[in-house]
Amino acid sequence: MTEPDWGALAQGWLARLAQCSEPGPGVTRLPFTPEHRAALDVLTDLMTQAGLSVSLDAAGTLTGRLGGPHDAPVLLMGSHQDSVREGGAYDGIMGVVLPILALMKLRADAIRLPFAVEVLAFADEEGVRFPTALMGPRALAGSFDMTALEMCDRDGTSLRAAMEGFGLAPDNLPRLKRDPAQVIGWIETHLEQGPVLEEASARLGVVTAICGIERHSITLRGQAAHAGTMPMHLRRDALTGAAELTLAVEEMARTTPELLATVGALQVRPGVVNAVPGEVVMTLEIRSPSDAARENAGLELTRRAHQIAQLRGLELSMTRSYAQPATQCAPDFINRLSQAISERGHGALQLASGATHDASAMAALCPVGMLFTDCRAGISHHPDEYVSPQSMSDAVHVLARVIEHFSQSTWPVPT
Amino acid sequence: MTEPDWGALAQGWLARLAQCSEPGPGVTRLPFTPEHRAALDVLTDLMTQAGLSVSLDAAGTLTGRLGGPHDAPVLLMGSHQDSVREGGAYDGIMGVVLPILALMKLRADAIRLPFAVEVLAFADEEGVRFPTALMGPRALAGSFDMTALEMCDRDGTSLRAAMEGFGLAPDNLPRLKRDPAQVIGWIETHLEQGPVLEEASARLGVVTAICGIERHSITLRGQAAHAGTMPMHLRRDALTGAAELTLAVEEMARTTPELLATVGALQVRPGVVNAVPGEVVMTLEIRSPSDAARENAGLELTRRAHQIAQLRGLELSMTRSYAQPATQCAPDFINRLSQAISERGHGALQLASGATHDASAMAALCPVGMLFTDCRAGISHHPDEYVSPQSMSDAVHVLARVIEHFSQSTWPVPT
Repeated sequence: MTEPDWGALAQGWLARLAQCSEPGPGVTRLPFTPEHRAALDVLTDLMTQAGLSVSLDAAGTLTGRLGGPHDAPVLLMGSHQDSVREGGAYDGIMGVVLPILALMKLRADAIRLPFAVEVLAFADEEGVRFPTALMGPRALAGSFDMTALEMCDRDGTSLRAAMEGFGLAPDNLPRLKRDPAQVIGWIETHLEQGPVLEEASARLGVVTAICGIERHSITLRGQAAHAGTMPMHLRRDALTGAAELTLAVEEMARTTPELLATVGALQVRPGVVNAVPGEVVMTLEIRSPSDAARENAGLELTRRAHQIAQLRGLELSMTRSYAQPATQCAPDFINRLSQAISERGHGALQLASGATHDASAMAALCPVGMLFTDCRAGISHHPDEYVSPQSMSDAVHVLARVIEHFSQSTWPVPT
Repeated sequence: MTEPDWGALAQGWLARLAQCSEPGPGVTRLPFTPEHRAALDVLTDLMTQAGLSVSLDAAGTLTGRLGGPHDAPVLLMGSHQDSVREGGAYDGIMGVVLPILALMKLRADAIRLPFAVEVLAFADEEGVRFPTALMGPRALAGSFDMTALEMCDRDGTSLRAAMEGFGLAPDNLPRLKRDPAQVIGWIETHLEQGPVLEEASARLGVVTAICGIERHSITLRGQAAHAGTMPMHLRRDALTGAAELTLAVEEMARTTPELLATVGALQVRPGVVNAVPGEVVMTLEIRSPSDAARENAGLELTRRAHQIAQLRGLELSMTRSYAQPATQCAPDFINRLSQAISERGHGALQLASGATHDASAMAALCPVGMLFTDCRAGISHHPDEYVSPQSMSDAVHVLARVIEHFSQSTWPVPT
């Protein structure tokens, strides 16, 4: 039997799954909707073809299981089924399709595994519909906060009601908690969502860590004034202060290894052509795989902001509104993924993930590893999102190789 | 007879006039409205008490005339009756009340003038209701563009219809043009609308020139990107480019004499906490009493903007959307006003006006001069706008002195 073209096969399944979308540009597939249901039907078809036994848990996570020997531990793989509004056909869902194809390949190669493998399609990673996310992996890790069930979407439907409407019993969520001793680990495949691999002409990369994130809400208050009658030396211009801070943020990130820092939102009041700005409200976001580097940067930029405000006679209010620590990938998984890529004849580029993934929540349960594919022009969360069949084919081979190698080793994995 | 307390008198009349307002905070008095009519009724009362003969011209300008000998030329004084929305009780209207009181004082002092004086209350200087302004002075100067009559307010009422509803015959506007040979000049009194006089503890100031203004519309386009996945060195961040330009604008104005430059409006797209900004739309406004200084600054900042854009890989679109040359006040008027302030026992601070005034349009007809009063905390266009009775009393004395001195000199005024 000729080996299937795994890249073309992946592209075909992803094209079918992209049809499971609200009308409009790109893919819009929110959790617990008819589009979600349609996607699960397609995935069930694919999992069945791969010889997996399919089930749906109380969190809406679709599971395709390849059983192993009695009492053998399980290797968990997968990603999320949902998309952002008008997103692409790869983010999340590709990470469900590729490990299924890898298991299909192992079966075709007649490889027998001394452990079980489950491919999971989580319901909600993007958090677009409800102001919460990652319920699926959190339920497995036992870290899901049940009060989130009462959160509502913009139509006033609670998460609980949406899940019940989907045929789920959310009260059973606590029962989903897995025994860490029975889990080998979590391996997630995802497109990079950035340009680093493409810049390096690498189809695949291995994630070393998922960046921690902190966000600050900043308000600078000066004095709004007539732009014609307020002399320069008496101005308390909130926008020039904000500009100075924005450049300090950029400078800090450019000169600190492994640090990203961004002023993404900035509003000016009164915001008219002939008025000196009296107030600026802006955001600062800092990401790093090193929590120490991130926290140092946050403190240093807070110090700089106070200094700028003082020198310019501005009032400053700056609060850290959000903080999420970094997730380190298991060194053993990094090594296994890197070696499998090398065996495939490629350099194994290692990089941090700036975006959050299901792996961030899975890390509370078990060791995690992540395989990145490149994506065209670094674009994601957009209808133009694209991963080539060549990259997906390489990923299927690498995943199959990694699974196969686990069978020749011991677990639990050293962390 | 004891001399009246001119400051208290002015305050009383201005309080009456402040009642001629739409409901809400401060004063809202737009042209050709019932509030405008009510204000003209109060002014007519005041002008009549001052012994002036009152008339309303086709532009809605209320005129109080103190006649002089046959064929004698006329000295024009005044300002505008209208306010911004939720503005103050002084802007414009104080410049009508004070010269009336000055003429009242001259009559009380039994001074006879060898020329006529007219105090004018123009209908519309702020341009709040219609997208045009300064019709009154432009009609006198013969520079009014009749096509502006077809402009509409936000309710769809044309300027022509509003004027006709007010009992005016706008087709007669061209007949209002004055013969420059018959006009001695225009002297306008206005609050400074800035903090310079108050900072210098000066109640009155003399305007040397009204700043020219130019405005630029600027768009910087980079590439919106995920703030977690786009490395710093590959970013094309429109906001950090805009920040650099904003600081360059401030630096230029701080280091160039007689230059004001302001980035007043700035919008960021997509403008969310976790996205590298892809586009910024911003404004630049430059003001100076020197047209050469202003134009040089505009060219230099355009050059800087292109330089910043090029170094950061941004696209720049920058167009000068508006330009209005500076108006120089007549040196003879500056001297007369300064001397009268000195005679009153004060230092005569001279300053440029950063704001436009009726004088800007009157300069097309005759020499112009402007007297500024201080205002509390530099505040104007706001319900908190305030000029003290002491400053207004000084202004009445100075105006009366300047008018009296004209009678001892020749005209036309040297320009």
